[in-house]
Amino acid sequence: MAFNFDRFKFNADGLIPAIIQDNRTNEVLMLAYMNREALAKTLSSGQTWFYSRSRQQLWHKGETSGNIQEVDEIYFDCDADALLIKVRQHGAACHEGYKSCFHYRIEKDGRVGLVGEMVFNPADVYKEG
Amino acid sequence: MAFNFDRFKFNADGLIPAIIQDNRTNEVLMLAYMNREALAKTLSSGQTWFYSRSRQQLWHKGETSGNIQEVDEIYFDCDADALLIKVRQHGAACHEGYKSCFHYRIEKDGRVGLVGEMVFNPADVYKEG
Repeated sequence: MAFNFDRFKFNADGLIPAIIQDNRTNEVLMLAYMNREALAKTLSSGQTWFYSRSRQQLWHKGETSGNIQEVDEIYFDCDADALLIKVRQHGAACHEGYKSCFHYRIEKDGRVGLVGEMVFNPADVYKEG
Repeated sequence: MAFNFDRFKFNADGLIPAIIQDNRTNEVLMLAYMNREALAKTLSSGQTWFYSRSRQQLWHKGETSGNIQEVDEIYFDCDADALLIKVRQHGAACHEGYKSCFHYRIEKDGRVGLVGEMVFNPADVYKEG
């Protein structure tokens, strides 16, 4: 039985936010957006697909970097307007080379701290053509 | 030194999504939206404030239910368009009585499973006036 997408509330742009969480450590890795097609591809392929708002196109996470996300579980919330996807992350999630995109912390004094370790050097992964 | 909000990318409605995570268990509790005022109140009060898109007003989480969220850490992502807030959750986050709003899971066969335990009975908490 296929999941009925009509249950979800996509926003005015046809998108729904998806929180990506590491299924082993429970670390939150990133927040990205899916349209119906990205969600369908995620469900059928077992890897995450998103819709890039800046590039206005479907985006297979890890296609360039190899840092794919294998989907273990997909949850949605009580309002059916947000997804929580638990994954096995290959490499690191952030294009800046950090495991999580959430590596900036607002400190008590208002300064911004950099948290976490760099997993890869972005210059080695995203080469200019 | 106060944090400079100009760093953040609020969307066309002046909102930024905030992922709320339990700081002890790392469970993702909910996704809600903040405008500048909600974020300022969150920073100054040490408890979460959001902007309710349905009610179109500021919303102090837990004001009715008592299930407030005490803020431990605030992170933001590499695009500065999403927040991750680690909290100590009083009671449960979801108005349906579950610890997390993400208590619906899409099963392999396409059915929807209910995950987690009810922490409180909503009928006891949200009484009609």
